[in-house]
Amino acid sequence: MSILADTIRSISPLDGEAMAAVSARQSILTKPQGSLGRLEELSIQMAGIQRRPFPTVRHKAIITIAGDHGVAREGVSAYPAEVTPQMVLNFLRGGAAINVLARMVGARVVVVDLGVAVDIPPADGLVVRKIGYGTASIVRGPAMTREQAVASIEAGIEVVRAEARAGLDVVGTGDMGIGNTTPSAAIVAAVTGLPAATVTGRGTGVDDAGLSRKIAAVETALAVNRPDPNDGLDLLAKVGGFEIGGIAGVILGAAASGVAVVVDGFISAAGALVAAALTPQCVPYMIAGHRSVEIGHAHALAHLGLAPVVDLGMRLGEGTGAAIAIGIVESATRIVSEMATFADAGVSDKVS
Amino acid sequence: MSILADTIRSISPLDGEAMAAVSARQSILTKPQGSLGRLEELSIQMAGIQRRPFPTVRHKAIITIAGDHGVAREGVSAYPAEVTPQMVLNFLRGGAAINVLARMVGARVVVVDLGVAVDIPPADGLVVRKIGYGTASIVRGPAMTREQAVASIEAGIEVVRAEARAGLDVVGTGDMGIGNTTPSAAIVAAVTGLPAATVTGRGTGVDDAGLSRKIAAVETALAVNRPDPNDGLDLLAKVGGFEIGGIAGVILGAAASGVAVVVDGFISAAGALVAAALTPQCVPYMIAGHRSVEIGHAHALAHLGLAPVVDLGMRLGEGTGAAIAIGIVESATRIVSEMATFADAGVSDKVS
Repeated sequence: MSILADTIRSISPLDGEAMAAVSARQSILTKPQGSLGRLEELSIQMAGIQRRPFPTVRHKAIITIAGDHGVAREGVSAYPAEVTPQMVLNFLRGGAAINVLARMVGARVVVVDLGVAVDIPPADGLVVRKIGYGTASIVRGPAMTREQAVASIEAGIEVVRAEARAGLDVVGTGDMGIGNTTPSAAIVAAVTGLPAATVTGRGTGVDDAGLSRKIAAVETALAVNRPDPNDGLDLLAKVGGFEIGGIAGVILGAAASGVAVVVDGFISAAGALVAAALTPQCVPYMIAGHRSVEIGHAHALAHLGLAPVVDLGMRLGEGTGAAIAIGIVESATRIVSEMATFADAGVSDKVS
Repeated sequence: MSILADTIRSISPLDGEAMAAVSARQSILTKPQGSLGRLEELSIQMAGIQRRPFPTVRHKAIITIAGDHGVAREGVSAYPAEVTPQMVLNFLRGGAAINVLARMVGARVVVVDLGVAVDIPPADGLVVRKIGYGTASIVRGPAMTREQAVASIEAGIEVVRAEARAGLDVVGTGDMGIGNTTPSAAIVAAVTGLPAATVTGRGTGVDDAGLSRKIAAVETALAVNRPDPNDGLDLLAKVGGFEIGGIAGVILGAAASGVAVVVDGFISAAGALVAAALTPQCVPYMIAGHRSVEIGHAHALAHLGLAPVVDLGMRLGEGTGAAIAIGIVESATRIVSEMATFADAGVSDKVS
């Protein structure tokens, strides 16, 4: 059986017993019931994912996957494509936002090259699993072959599985790829049925003319390729990207390994839509890290039924929103393990 | 000169030069301009508060102030008043939510007794500055005398000043006091002019009958006392509480010491309204940690012109929302110090 089919098959529903145990424990901790809101919900979800009544967040990683995009040549980005490999080197030297925010929460950063248009010299912390040297332009035909779509997802699965073997309680997804909000918008439009203009934003900061070109590129990509939104591989092959496939793979691999996956922003949400099209069983393993200001993101989250943990007006990608949320997810799990109960602390419970 | 008058006089405007320096630096860091949203805004505010271009968040404290309320005897809370001292002991033993969340972000917890109805045995981490053994019931007359109002604020000032001398980059406010959402709602109603029913919520979780009693209590308190919303001391004395005064003092003292103050939820916002009534100069030093589900909180924040950092459906108090936000504020400052610039990293800037 293929890695992909095997992974999809091995994703279980969350553990209802562990979830019920945490829910019950939350009601005897020294606080009014429900008063920690989302932290309580996250602790219950984490228990279901980790299949134990005291979930933990000790081992953390952000997997930031890079790839280039043929569509970047169509004037859809504020930055030149050479920035993709430059930023990969920045990640490896620890100078990017994701490095700072991952250090803040004690998460390691794993940088994966699935499709940068040039070769990156070997370095510590870099995993090279190149599927191609950038995708083809989605306004002219499919981004990649169906085989490449499978390969990019399987690479993501294998990377997260290797991390899980090394120790992993929660993983954040991240992306780097100049031009990648355009295929992401195409995926969101295809899945939600919303018009391109509703789900296509300014990405790294294009001006009005650039935004018009992006919207037209998304419309053309959908018209030329006609992706099947119910077929995750078709969606990814026709209007996706290598890193988007890698992110879908990280999500599927995490779910199959019983690891919670904090989905970053817009590009990660596109990966999540591909993963969910392959199997909706992976969705309960997702935590939406943040809401991006990129306008299509809220639509993607609504389609997945996910509510973001934070909303900080961010739109950087790389896994930055996931990193911030991981700190909050860890807080949620520590509440369960470290708080005293009413009985332990000799505190009177509610008058009822 | 009194401690209060001296403190109010010594609050300076934020340092515009340091703010401009961080704003300029944010535009040369390796990310699209503005793409870190609120993190960028927080870094600029922190620079203005700390009066330096590289703000830091190393020394952190949550000051959790406890007091009892005469109005708790009017059936306005889901918990008995004996919970106030029980929870203070829980704080001192490290078993409460605030202990867990403060540990998570490396903040020390300073517990202050300004007005618990019983004596708490001396303990490490407990500061006793008792102004009274609980306030009088605000439905029958003023909560406290004007002298007690001054004393509670000055106690807060002195506590935060002592912490500042020990090393403090950011402080979070916190509260404990059964019944304290009722005086907080009265303060918010008095300052905003909104009806009691609009700003009075379920607190720790009263039922419908309890909520009706709370709303009636707030209406009666305002009718009986007629607090002057432009006179912070009158507001506090007539419908406030000792811990609310202490929180106002922490805010004023932090501002006077050049320390950022992360304001927790509804009760802390009431303290912030008292502080802002005494001098609006303190408002730029405030960061709203979170939005509470307590319905009056959003109105209080709007009146102060503050946007919450997170919105996690919490309503616990103690400083828990502030603790979560402190991690995000620290992340914001680390971005400025630790990220590479486009020039450092050899990354191409935007095509313009």
